[in-house]
Formats: sequence, structure tokens, C-alpha cells
Amino acid sequence: MKRIAFLLAAVAVVAGVVVSTAPASGPTHEEAAPILGIKIFPGYRDWRLISVAHEEGNLNDLRAILGNDAAIKAYRKGTLPFPDGTIIARLAWSYVPSEENNKVFGRNQSFVPGSAPDWYLQFMVKDSKKYAATGGWGFAEFDKDGKPADEAMHKACFPCHEPAKARDFVFTRYAP
Amino acid sequence: MKRIAFLLAAVAVVAGVVVSTAPASGPTHEEAAPILGIKIFPGYRDWRLISVAHEEGNLNDLRAILGNDAAIKAYRKGTLPFPDGTIIARLAWSYVPSEENNKVFGRNQSFVPGSAPDWYLQFMVKDSKKYAATGGWGFAEFDKDGKPADEAMHKACFPCHEPAKARDFVFTRYAP
Repeated sequence: MKRIAFLLAAVAVVAGVVVSTAPASGPTHEEAAPILGIKIFPGYRDWRLISVAHEEGNLNDLRAILGNDAAIKAYRKGTLPFPDGTIIARLAWSYVPSEENNKVFGRNQSFVPGSAPDWYLQFMVKDSKKYAATGGWGFAEFDKDGKPADEAMHKACFPCHEPAKARDFVFTRYAP
Repeated sequence: MKRIAFLLAAVAVVAGVVVSTAPASGPTHEEAAPILGIKIFPGYRDWRLISVAHEEGNLNDLRAILGNDAAIKAYRKGTLPFPDGTIIARLAWSYVPSEENNKVFGRNQSFVPGSAPDWYLQFMVKDSKKYAATGGWGFAEFDKDGKPADEAMHKACFPCHEPAKARDFVFTRYAP
């Protein structure tokens, strides 16, 4: 862990900054994510769908995984590792029953996005040189107001993704 | 119900046909949906995200709701009723635990898209004149091979959507 922390700190020194503008909706905060200097990518809410998921437990969310053009192209071709320029965005919402839908069905069956959780927005940014110390990926996490998570949160990203090394550290598979 | 069936039959007679080509993935079948003559829209898998959901019970799916440009524009502006030209696509996958993700977390927590269910792909197509008898919406449903559902299935679409009349018969809200 000490070694990882050191490497992440070293990456932070050389990390660049991505210019951010307001997406169609969602956070617009201009503060850069700590450690890797990644800002919210403009237009991420317009990116194409990679997949969806539900996480139980502490997360208890519904999530959509979107990709920029490079990400979608790589996913559809099955390209591994992902090429530099790939950006994957993970949006999450709290997992709540839809009372209006359930009324129609006559039973509890429909779960929909509720409010944005603290971990609303995450990015994985592929740059094999810049982020060499973390598998070629830069990680960034923001709340619904666009405020980046703290350093401790960011340090947890890569260790958690390491078990997915065989798929270039990316958990999400493409939903056809 | 008799009246609805009659109206749907009447609509079928005047319904047009949409030209279909293969999307980036998913079904490519050329058979038109019965009743309304709607075919699979080309490129629907590239449309932007409206929302995600999980349906329990008999459906037991994870779903993504995508929209064409007209749909996304209307959703973001809060335009109701949706303008003619709006198309909403609903993709669904069976709701399955992700063994590879759960291994990393050390507990059962991650649910991801599995195989495509029989009701894989649905469209709502807004044309207030052509589909006047069903709230201005044409409904179509396809399996993973692009084969349309039967007439009985299609007749169930509008009656089920009627309770959402206040929101122009559309259940899904935009996930910001």
C-alpha cells in the first residue's frame, strides 16, 4: 500500500489538467480531482451507453456506464488493452422504489434512480504514459455538485481495480 | 378493451414503415412489428441515455432507456407532450449477479446485464396524427433476434401506459 501511495503521489506531480465546461446536466464544478488533476469531462452525459448495473450493500445504487467515442469503439471491437484516449464515465443514483410505477403494476416491482449519492460521478481516463503507475488509468471521483472526492478515496481506486487486470482493470462489460 | 382493440386495428391500417438497418450491435431482423408496422430503428444503440431501472417480479431485468435527439431535447427542456419525431427505446437484459465483481468485493453485491429476455427491445414513437388512437404513440416490441412480439403483446402496450397520461403516457423520468 505504501508503494501504491508513493506511485500515486508521483503521478500527481506530472498529471495534466483537462478543461471542463458544463454538461447538459449534472455537476459543473471546476475543481480538479486531487491526486491526478482530472476535471469533469464536458458533455459526458451525452456519451453512449456501455452498460448498466445495480450495486447492493453500502453502495445501494443504480448506475450507468458511458463511454467516449474511443471507449465505445474499443468495447465493440473487443480491443484490449483500451487505447490511450479512452474515457469511461460511471454515473450513479440512489436505488429507490418507484411509487408511481408500482401503483400501475399493483405491486412493488420498479426501482428507479433517486437522488445522487456522494459518489455520483467517476471517470477512468486511459493514458498509458501519464498514468503508467496505475495500470495506464487515471481515476477521478466527484459528488453531484462536481466536488472531487478526497485523496484517500482516490487512493482506493486502483487497488480495487487491480483484480480486473486481465480486462485492463475495467470491470464493466459491454451490454449488447 | 374492445374499443381499444378496434382503434389499434384501425391504426394498423394507416401505419407507415420505418426503414431499418443494422445497429452497432443487437438485433437486425427486418420483420416489422405487427399492428403498427414499426421496424427497429437504425442506430438506436448509439442514442443517448435517458435513465436506467431495475424491474423485479416476472420481468426481473436491468434496463436502459435511450432517446433519439428529439427525445433528449424534450426531456432536458421538460417539454410535454413530447413533440412528433420523439422516439424512446427501452433495452432490457436479465438481472444476474456478477460473480467476477462479487469476488472482488468479497460479498454478493453486484448485479449486471445477463442474457437478453424475450422483451429485449421496445420503442415508443411519437406521431400525434398517425398514432392518435393510442395517445399519439406507436408501440413496438422485439426479441433479441429482432423478431417482433405478437399482436396480443402489442395490444397490451397502450392500456398499460394510460395511467401515465399526465406525463404523456411515458413512465420514465430523466436521470440527471
